[in-house]
Amino acid sequence: MTARPTLRVGLIGHGFMGKAHSNAWRQAPRFFNLPAEVRMSTLCGRDARAVKKAAADFGWEKSATDWRAVVADPEIDLIDISTPNDSHAAIAIAAAAAGKAVLCEKPLARDVREAERMTKAVRQARVVNMVCHNYRRVPALALAREMIKRGELGERLFHFRARYAQDWIVDPEFPLVWRLRSGSAESGSLGDLGSHIVDLGRYLVGEFREVCATLETFVKQRPVPEARGRRGKVKVDDAVAVIGRFRNGALATLEATRFAQGRKNALTIEINGSEGSLVFDLEEMNRLRFYSARDPATERGFREIIVTEGAHPYIDHWWPPGHLVGYEHSFVHTIADFVRAIVARKNVAPSFADGLATQRVLEAIAQSAQRRAWVTL
Amino acid sequence: MTARPTLRVGLIGHGFMGKAHSNAWRQAPRFFNLPAEVRMSTLCGRDARAVKKAAADFGWEKSATDWRAVVADPEIDLIDISTPNDSHAAIAIAAAAAGKAVLCEKPLARDVREAERMTKAVRQARVVNMVCHNYRRVPALALAREMIKRGELGERLFHFRARYAQDWIVDPEFPLVWRLRSGSAESGSLGDLGSHIVDLGRYLVGEFREVCATLETFVKQRPVPEARGRRGKVKVDDAVAVIGRFRNGALATLEATRFAQGRKNALTIEINGSEGSLVFDLEEMNRLRFYSARDPATERGFREIIVTEGAHPYIDHWWPPGHLVGYEHSFVHTIADFVRAIVARKNVAPSFADGLATQRVLEAIAQSAQRRAWVTL
Amino acid sequence: MTARPTLRVGLIGHGFMGKAHSNAWRQAPRFFNLPAEVRMSTLCGRDARAVKKAAADFGWEKSATDWRAVVADPEIDLIDISTPNDSHAAIAIAAAAAGKAVLCEKPLARDVREAERMTKAVRQARVVNMVCHNYRRVPALALAREMIKRGELGERLFHFRARYAQDWIVDPEFPLVWRLRSGSAESGSLGDLGSHIVDLGRYLVGEFREVCATLETFVKQRPVPEARGRRGKVKVDDAVAVIGRFRNGALATLEATRFAQGRKNALTIEINGSEGSLVFDLEEMNRLRFYSARDPATERGFREIIVTEGAHPYIDHWWPPGHLVGYEHSFVHTIADFVRAIVARKNVAPSFADGLATQRVLEAIAQSAQRRAWVTL
Amino acid sequence: MTARPTLRVGLIGHGFMGKAHSNAWRQAPRFFNLPAEVRMSTLCGRDARAVKKAAADFGWEKSATDWRAVVADPEIDLIDISTPNDSHAAIAIAAAAAGKAVLCEKPLARDVREAERMTKAVRQARVVNMVCHNYRRVPALALAREMIKRGELGERLFHFRARYAQDWIVDPEFPLVWRLRSGSAESGSLGDLGSHIVDLGRYLVGEFREVCATLETFVKQRPVPEARGRRGKVKVDDAVAVIGRFRNGALATLEATRFAQGRKNALTIEINGSEGSLVFDLEEMNRLRFYSARDPATERGFREIIVTEGAHPYIDHWWPPGHLVGYEHSFVHTIADFVRAIVARKNVAPSFADGLATQRVLEAIAQSAQRRAWVTL
Repeated sequence: MTARPTLRVGLIGHGFMGKAHSNAWRQAPRFFNLPAEVRMSTLCGRDARAVKKAAADFGWEKSATDWRAVVADPEIDLIDISTPNDSHAAIAIAAAAAGKAVLCEKPLARDVREAERMTKAVRQARVVNMVCHNYRRVPALALAREMIKRGELGERLFHFRARYAQDWIVDPEFPLVWRLRSGSAESGSLGDLGSHIVDLGRYLVGEFREVCATLETFVKQRPVPEARGRRGKVKVDDAVAVIGRFRNGALATLEATRFAQGRKNALTIEINGSEGSLVFDLEEMNRLRFYSARDPATERGFREIIVTEGAHPYIDHWWPPGHLVGYEHSFVHTIADFVRAIVARKNVAPSFADGLATQRVLEAIAQSAQRRAWVTL
Repeated sequence: MTARPTLRVGLIGHGFMGKAHSNAWRQAPRFFNLPAEVRMSTLCGRDARAVKKAAADFGWEKSATDWRAVVADPEIDLIDISTPNDSHAAIAIAAAAAGKAVLCEKPLARDVREAERMTKAVRQARVVNMVCHNYRRVPALALAREMIKRGELGERLFHFRARYAQDWIVDPEFPLVWRLRSGSAESGSLGDLGSHIVDLGRYLVGEFREVCATLETFVKQRPVPEARGRRGKVKVDDAVAVIGRFRNGALATLEATRFAQGRKNALTIEINGSEGSLVFDLEEMNRLRFYSARDPATERGFREIIVTEGAHPYIDHWWPPGHLVGYEHSFVHTIADFVRAIVARKNVAPSFADGLATQRVLEAIAQSAQRRAWVTL
Repeated sequence: MTARPTLRVGLIGHGFMGKAHSNAWRQAPRFFNLPAEVRMSTLCGRDARAVKKAAADFGWEKSATDWRAVVADPEIDLIDISTPNDSHAAIAIAAAAAGKAVLCEKPLARDVREAERMTKAVRQARVVNMVCHNYRRVPALALAREMIKRGELGERLFHFRARYAQDWIVDPEFPLVWRLRSGSAESGSLGDLGSHIVDLGRYLVGEFREVCATLETFVKQRPVPEARGRRGKVKVDDAVAVIGRFRNGALATLEATRFAQGRKNALTIEINGSEGSLVFDLEEMNRLRFYSARDPATERGFREIIVTEGAHPYIDHWWPPGHLVGYEHSFVHTIADFVRAIVARKNVAPSFADGLATQRVLEAIAQSAQRRAWVTL
Repeated sequence: MTARPTLRVGLIGHGFMGKAHSNAWRQAPRFFNLPAEVRMSTLCGRDARAVKKAAADFGWEKSATDWRAVVADPEIDLIDISTPNDSHAAIAIAAAAAGKAVLCEKPLARDVREAERMTKAVRQARVVNMVCHNYRRVPALALAREMIKRGELGERLFHFRARYAQDWIVDPEFPLVWRLRSGSAESGSLGDLGSHIVDLGRYLVGEFREVCATLETFVKQRPVPEARGRRGKVKVDDAVAVIGRFRNGALATLEATRFAQGRKNALTIEINGSEGSLVFDLEEMNRLRFYSARDPATERGFREIIVTEGAHPYIDHWWPPGHLVGYEHSFVHTIADFVRAIVARKNVAPSFADGLATQRVLEAIAQSAQRRAWVTL
């Protein structure tokens, strides 16, 4: 019998996502009986003082400012990338080259080309790789996938509609932060929110065949934070609307927006199949609504499954029925599955190849919007 | 083959309930293939001018001011009583004596004694009699009853909780109208709202065994409408809270109030049985929520049945699935069943005997509140 | 002082819509203090026996089988058209030529050309004309319009998304009824359901500027009712998905489908403006959900307005707060406003010109789907 | 400037509550900028092997089996009690005697006498003390309290109704576990669930004045786990129903049950005041529904506040708006406030005195049920 391995983690990035990932690294070993001992070794960020404080706050053994050094560090077994999109590729490729397992925040890359290079790198290096599309591991969505797979919606799927709506930049005086600038973010609602719903479409329904889309920037100019009184042009999209088709014939209706007053983090999904429907809303993430045409005729209706039973995905590690889990738990589940995959030397989804496939759909959407035409994948 | 009989209706009372009953008499023959021709003969009220106008508005052939004459009129086949509570007994007893079928608004009477006299009168006269507890014929509640009868909730019922909440007199400046005065109304929320939930408890669960209650009058004095600047004492209850037991062992929790801000006509019911639960809210009256412990373990949840399918009670007479019915439809269903019962010379529930049974429970509640003690039925 | 005029109605068609319109003609005078006496004169249909029975059931004075005779009848003041789409134009134009006010079921016509001819006819004849887009007069939607007009959503509207989903033909064994055949219906979900949401888009947001759409027929062949064992090709759309823009810059996402299991009559709308949002679902038609960014920061949330208060549109004619109205009430309100317009000799919306404008959008959608390209209006 | 103090924690008990408390001790320092360094020193349990494993799993420095030694350990600064109810008193009193701050799981004690002794002990020892009524620190309930305090519900409160419903022992074959035996648990749904709603009633509305209650044991005998085929008598209550009054005149309706199929952890509260109402459901714990009679007349309705804004209680330590928190967060908040109180040497609510007050109400409820009479507090 071999000893339980130790996995030493290097996390690059300590903003919002860095906080969420740190929490997941801390919690996963406590709630999931992981096949490895996890050590939160190094937190890396550009600002030495800030990252040092973050490392202390979040519970990392040490901090660093040079991600190349962390990637090269023989004491580090895996790299977790939580930086802005423009550094994903460089870090991931270097980590793969160093033979390290890689977890990368979504969207995988800024464009298909980058995503291809990253995918090629991890394939060649044969390292375990994963994109942190954490919502796949919200228990209700994992359950949705299971139910579809075992045929609860019937043999055919007709509709997939997904909308990811927020409202944090409705105010035209909201400043031109990096997320609203092309270059660092490349895209607005499409990359940030759209990537989630494209990934979930692939997870729940299958591959996309064609899309037709439009992008919109409702507020064209915004105050520049660095220069008082000046306004800069907003180059990324505030909203995107898409119609499309999956290869299996299902129609897709996608929408992402940061301009829906009252919608805070409203990722809503509805899937209609020949025998039933599923409905999900991230703002009520512990629930999955299910309609079954197989129920007795007078007793059909959308049933609200509170996804907190021991038999539901991931839940037996947490609390008794009816005790809700929150946003951060989806990261904990992702990390737990990632660790298991590393130890088992197995693939885990969504892999970089999945991230690339999603990127292709995002690019097709952007092209479609630019050309005002359908784009086939 | 005999001719289709004609039923000539005399309706006593033309206020809110008179309007609802008139509508039901007008609509029932149009939507239900009734076994008799219904003629809206006479509308009766105390104020000659007002009742004449109401008769024209509501579609009655003629109006009258003396209910005794209407009851005695050989041209009238049945009497529908929509007057305030204090005249129910006299009219119903006279109608029965005249051999006429009688429909009476709820609550049947002001007290058990009156209800007994009325029940005796219709029994001796052998006339078809019914109390207009219209909510029994809201399709969702009729479905609830069917589901309980066929065992969807299991063999045992544990809990019946019902609450009827409104908010129309929260304002202490709301005047001392007749409904708030003892003498004409006898009781406040208990008789008006409580009678509905007691009736529904008997309809859905069974007979009550014991109750313990408290009554409350939150606003003790109110402006007298007739006398500017003067305030009169409020003698009826603003709210009532009851705990109790049914004969079959189920616990009852009842509550009626006119002091629940935001609750307009919120009659909510929850019934928990050994195999499932049902939930209803009159403010969403086309829905019945149903939880079945017999569903597969990972797919259980309250399902929201939209009670508008052709197979649901009464619905095939109306519109296609998903097209809602409203408040007034419950009266139409009541009238339709009443007419059928008259033609078939059969009993129909809720009969006066049911009204009496409900009255006994209301009286037990009132006594319990007065004595601050449990009262056994 | 002149006498109260009498309006004698000729209703053409006695199917589902004929039943709904008949009810509205019967009920409107009872609940709305109309400026004319309404007489339900003639119900017209092709099958003499069927229409005679329907006339008796629904309360019409007489029946007829030749709509041209009804239109020509000097005893008839207005024509209400509830026939299938392929006869709307002929009847409406004849009625206009005969100087009669015309109410026409939606969609106004089978195509823009017909709609133009109809609109021209009523304009030249100067007769009061209206399309029965009854949902405009669901109280919650009338309230939505009022709220938008008075600025509750702010100065700018960003998103209008509407979906009309049903599930009645998901079963591939559902037969090829007339509604699924081109020729009589011309279009499937687009004309039937899509026309409602396009009309509501124009009502609530404004004129469309451009659309891009796709149509889908999920079940390509269905059993032919007349010929046992044979299957015929389904030529109309089962579903339609649209992205588009309004002239005021708002993005539109429209969807109509008959393939959404569990959705019975689910016309859902969400509108996001700079200061708030509105949400509506026809399956909960007495409610309007409203989010106001003007509420205090810690107390914001979608509020569920139960649209049954006396101050809400149309409600003071019905019941007290919390007492729901149903599907049919929207027709009653339409008829009431139509009668008032006739007596006042005023225009009333949605007029034939509105129906034409909607038809143009529907045609643009169909063209866009055919050409796989954006179409500008 | 003094050094940041260190607090060394001894946690007694490592079952469900021990897991929840351990998590809170681990997470609180990571998300809340605590004024002390927290060290998870010792986890104590009776079974040496089990507690050792739990200590490793949950992240404690060491484990122990003798709580008296832990309490006496000078290396321990505070004692957290997560054991079954029958050992709360002994541990808490010893901890107080040893001068240690004490946090005790609810219910504080098995009876008033014990609670009095505990309260006296902490008062005499002048140690910071707190009962872990964690639901007070669910952000939505903390917000509810704030809103009531600042008058959002008006000057008067009329109704407090609370129900805590679960369904885990509906099956009569569910065994006679310790929670269902008198002696170890003392009471069933009353102590376990009822203590939460009594505490929340005191937190949100005020002190109780009188109660009248009934207890019920629906399943009188259950299989004894230790003896196959044998059944033992269930001595604790399956459900409790209470009516009562607060000192401020509000009516109380309380209910706790383990026999409500479909209700997993459904602690629901509704409070009606003169100017508004609040509604909460623990199964949707990130939401608070609020009706304000001060809203414009046509726009009133229950608004659903998603309590995840930075300005909401505790939320700025977690995630952006719309990102939900879960069950365990309420413990983290409790621990954070407890640590702050210790460092500041201040009282913190709910203190042992609060626990005692709650115990008095629970005892009054039990007495009332036994005597079948009202009991004044």
